[in-house]
Amino acid sequence: SAFLRIGYLFWGEFVISLFLFLTGHRLISQTAAKIDVDFDYDGPLMKTEVPGPRSRELMKQLNGIQNAEAVHFFCNYQESRGNYLVDVDGNRMLDLYSQISSIPIGYSHPSLIKLLQQPQNLSTFINRPALGILPPGNFAEKLKESLLLVAPKGLQQVITMSCGSCSNENAFKAIFMWYRFSDISSFVLIFVFLGLGCLATTHSKAIHKLDIPSFDWPIAPFPRLKYPLEEFVKENQQEEAHCLEEVEDLIVKYRKKKKIVAGIVIEPIQSEGGDNHASDDFFRKLRDITRKHGCAFLVDEVQTGGGCTGKFWAHEHWGLDDPADVVTFSKKMMTGGFFHKEEFRPDGPYRIFNTWLGDPAKNLMLAEVINVIKREDLLNNATNAGKALLAGLLDLQARYPHLISRARGRGTFCSFDTPNDTTRNKLIAIARNKGVVLGGCGDRSIRFRPTLIFKDHHAHLFLNIFSDILADFK
Amino acid sequence: SAFLRIGYLFWGEFVISLFLFLTGHRLISQTAAKIDVDFDYDGPLMKTEVPGPRSRELMKQLNGIQNAEAVHFFCNYQESRGNYLVDVDGNRMLDLYSQISSIPIGYSHPSLIKLLQQPQNLSTFINRPALGILPPGNFAEKLKESLLLVAPKGLQQVITMSCGSCSNENAFKAIFMWYRFSDISSFVLIFVFLGLGCLATTHSKAIHKLDIPSFDWPIAPFPRLKYPLEEFVKENQQEEAHCLEEVEDLIVKYRKKKKIVAGIVIEPIQSEGGDNHASDDFFRKLRDITRKHGCAFLVDEVQTGGGCTGKFWAHEHWGLDDPADVVTFSKKMMTGGFFHKEEFRPDGPYRIFNTWLGDPAKNLMLAEVINVIKREDLLNNATNAGKALLAGLLDLQARYPHLISRARGRGTFCSFDTPNDTTRNKLIAIARNKGVVLGGCGDRSIRFRPTLIFKDHHAHLFLNIFSDILADFK
Repeated sequence: SAFLRIGYLFWGEFVISLFLFLTGHRLISQTAAKIDVDFDYDGPLMKTEVPGPRSRELMKQLNGIQNAEAVHFFCNYQESRGNYLVDVDGNRMLDLYSQISSIPIGYSHPSLIKLLQQPQNLSTFINRPALGILPPGNFAEKLKESLLLVAPKGLQQVITMSCGSCSNENAFKAIFMWYRFSDISSFVLIFVFLGLGCLATTHSKAIHKLDIPSFDWPIAPFPRLKYPLEEFVKENQQEEAHCLEEVEDLIVKYRKKKKIVAGIVIEPIQSEGGDNHASDDFFRKLRDITRKHGCAFLVDEVQTGGGCTGKFWAHEHWGLDDPADVVTFSKKMMTGGFFHKEEFRPDGPYRIFNTWLGDPAKNLMLAEVINVIKREDLLNNATNAGKALLAGLLDLQARYPHLISRARGRGTFCSFDTPNDTTRNKLIAIARNKGVVLGGCGDRSIRFRPTLIFKDHHAHLFLNIFSDILADFK
Repeated sequence: SAFLRIGYLFWGEFVISLFLFLTGHRLISQTAAKIDVDFDYDGPLMKTEVPGPRSRELMKQLNGIQNAEAVHFFCNYQESRGNYLVDVDGNRMLDLYSQISSIPIGYSHPSLIKLLQQPQNLSTFINRPALGILPPGNFAEKLKESLLLVAPKGLQQVITMSCGSCSNENAFKAIFMWYRFSDISSFVLIFVFLGLGCLATTHSKAIHKLDIPSFDWPIAPFPRLKYPLEEFVKENQQEEAHCLEEVEDLIVKYRKKKKIVAGIVIEPIQSEGGDNHASDDFFRKLRDITRKHGCAFLVDEVQTGGGCTGKFWAHEHWGLDDPADVVTFSKKMMTGGFFHKEEFRPDGPYRIFNTWLGDPAKNLMLAEVINVIKREDLLNNATNAGKALLAGLLDLQARYPHLISRARGRGTFCSFDTPNDTTRNKLIAIARNKGVVLGGCGDRSIRFRPTLIFKDHHAHLFLNIFSDILADFK
């Protein structure tokens, strides 16, 4: 009924509204309309510096329980809406980092609230099954309404996992099993300067890896290009050719060590490592190398997937019919997991297995997220808002070349470099105090990872604020 | 208000109830009382064989998307309540496996339903934060109301993770970081025949490990004892002494290979490997060995933790003041993670880190689960119900020694052996068709992993059904 489609935000509010409805009061439709349309705030609102006094107090408390040195500030998620993150000191900030790129359609989206309030969904949130052995009756149906709706070309098989690390680790397992050699010590994967969270392979922060034993797995360099790409075509082609050579050299070198390269792992945009892009042609040639040497091609879309580049998967930009053998995901997809080709399917039960294998509650939310992405045309939105953002960054780069360089991006997945780590961190701190949350990556980059409901006007809002910051920067 | 404390199960029901309430109808309190008291069913109810026709149809569907050979049957979680799992064919079974031991207080517990319906909790379920950098304001408070309320002795630090594999992997990282050697290739951990889900260490099913490259990490044998333990004290002491010797030998042997044992990893009851118990004395001596050789002691309570042994942590049975350096958990705890001593605390930010680091929605549910455990005295319940179950198993073992041997258990964490794999699987299948869900482990064991609200009368119900099965078994 129309009554149940009301975009109420809070239970209490709903109870009051329902009462008013039953008693014939007219307020309800006004409330509903207001919330559906205006669930996003209309701008930042700053009350204290960030972190403010309440955040600093909570940091001390949390630090008594675990190392809390990475905490930026504490949040009031109940008050956070759309593109705006509200902190515990009442500061409301335009969030261009969105929980390390993991909030797809903004905070407190009315569609997700509705989903949670539907009685038939309650069970999914409180009865978490062991999906591999006792799935809910609607498991396949929900996969079809969520992940399979957006399956990468040719990859119709999917396995869910609880997080990004497990997604990649189990995808590695699937590749090794596909290779089916008897001497298991003779396998390796080549990582093209990967940034992900697994024990043996992370480069997301150099510090993650200190003191941890690791496999002897080769790492090939990700191309380091000059931007804007269209101005440095020749130099970039050379750099990419060099990197592709390196990959083939590693395959041969490891073969001589009696270690066979079972697969190559790459991100379409190398994210934690500093937002490094490569040309579509680079990826096409890398794909050819995997075919030539009979190894699997794993595309890690944990950070790039879910629509932020303007296509649902960043690898779609390559225009290939057969872009990958395995694609891993997490973050904006709400659930972790990986898509793969039929031939990478485990050849028996329990070969890719753990207790939970993901969480149907996340699949349920993803189905709704994908609905919203389609209904609100959010892929095109990412393309357009990204264009506005990148154009503005290029403009700022022209005006402040001593502060901004290598502005780059695809969709809203944009970034730029600053002269050094200190300047970068200072800019992030100033922006935050002016009401904009930004993230860093690599050793001197600032990256943009807004939600999919980040629009042109948010880009302009940010650019105005940041332009003032750069003008004042000392 | 009293009105909001009603234990309504469904939205539609609530809307009707609210209407009746507003119009002065008396039905509402009756509905509420019924649901609160009788949320458990009163027995199995079988309509088809299991898997039934609907399950078999759904298996075919799911098998088109992923390997579904491990699926037992498909479930109707909305209809599942308390100790009873309902399948998609309408069969209602007494569940003694509880999703591989991961449903703490039964299906559809009214307290969890209420929690989900409280408006102030909505945000926690739909706005999942990057906990390491932007935690919610109540993060420390919720940890104090959940995990820290049940922190193992001396382990006041805690880090949450999304699943069991990540819990163990990151606990390993914490141990390696604590050791702080510069030559990172020189570390190993000794696994005392561990059963967990990590890439490099799993033994949960032999099949998990095929074709996967792994570390050269030593594995010491878990004692293989004779049961009942009190009848074979001397033999068991010898077996345990032998295993402890083996552990020390491995430490020395690896030291000669220039590999230092940084830690020893063990489950208090070796679970997936076949429910192997050891005496409290064995664990105390193993703890002494870790001290003597300066290595960390990691107790993996992923499967044993959460109350099923009659104590919140199985290691409490050892009666030690300093039982462990690190304790990992998941499953019944709703969230993964690990407790550790102050000195195992990462010495900087981002050293133990990933995007989500668990999920505050799971902490919220865990806080309520712990409330229920205390309020309903469920640890003592596990002790008592476990006694009834084990006494019954010993009785069946005396009557059917050709079918049942080595009956063993602590709390409801019970198991017995069958003559072989085939007999075991046949017994599990027959029991399922009679309305009881059981799980296997090791190569011939049947294990009991009921919820914490499994009571005496459920034990007797099971024993009656199983006694008939054994009498008829050919």
